[in-house]
Amino acid sequence: MVSKWMALALAQAREAADRGETPVGAVLVYDGKVIAAAGNRVEELSDPTAHAEILVVREAARLLQTPRLVGADLYVTLEPCPMCATALSFARIKRVFFGAFDPKGGGIDHGPRIFGQPTCHHQPEVFGGISEQACAALLVDFFKARRT
Amino acid sequence: MVSKWMALALAQAREAADRGETPVGAVLVYDGKVIAAAGNRVEELSDPTAHAEILVVREAARLLQTPRLVGADLYVTLEPCPMCATALSFARIKRVFFGAFDPKGGGIDHGPRIFGQPTCHHQPEVFGGISEQACAALLVDFFKARRT
Repeated sequence: MVSKWMALALAQAREAADRGETPVGAVLVYDGKVIAAAGNRVEELSDPTAHAEILVVREAARLLQTPRLVGADLYVTLEPCPMCATALSFARIKRVFFGAFDPKGGGIDHGPRIFGQPTCHHQPEVFGGISEQACAALLVDFFKARRT
Repeated sequence: MVSKWMALALAQAREAADRGETPVGAVLVYDGKVIAAAGNRVEELSDPTAHAEILVVREAARLLQTPRLVGADLYVTLEPCPMCATALSFARIKRVFFGAFDPKGGGIDHGPRIFGQPTCHHQPEVFGGISEQACAALLVDFFKARRT
């Protein structure tokens, strides 16, 4: 089911691009169902924390009425940054599937490698590079268009 | 003015304790005025990202209608975690004043030391240990009471 959920995350990323936001999208899967889906909304909401991952975690936690989403899986088109990676750990996310790797801003396979820190108490299982090409192409096209 | 702002952050931390939340409080100062103040609300809001720092950054960004709080200072009773430290960098916070050091969960002077990462593009100036005793005592008392 990986590609199906990542396709939904990609659709969210495309909608983010249409809104002029960095095209990253995420879906939160719990008990075999998508319970939250979002794209980046930093500019629209004037909220520096409104990354796609944070938005779906907050929405899912609100729906399930608990800050701990034990057993939930996250699908996101880009490697989460350190802020999001830490939030995913706090939220007890079980598995993180991400698309493109992010050497400049990522916080899982790059930078502070949050889940590998001795002070990180919950480490989700991580699967990177899912639908990598499509996820990366969206970002490349977006920033190319902005530079011209 | 440091002690005055930290006193306000401490008052927010005490209110958080009264609500059964980990007693951490924060205020956001912009242009010489407090524009947002909050304590931890993770349990109350069922939101794993509802740390005091995130709440004041989100509120200030909403009020100023920009995700970039250039020139703003943050006062918080505990060393920010990696999630909050990254959010403070994204928000372009100028200076971070914190109370107690947090060897177990901190992300500035401990753990991933977010602002020292080569991939961190904005490093606030940091002043740790402000009103340290009072800030730490609140946390110690809170966890002592929970264990009995």
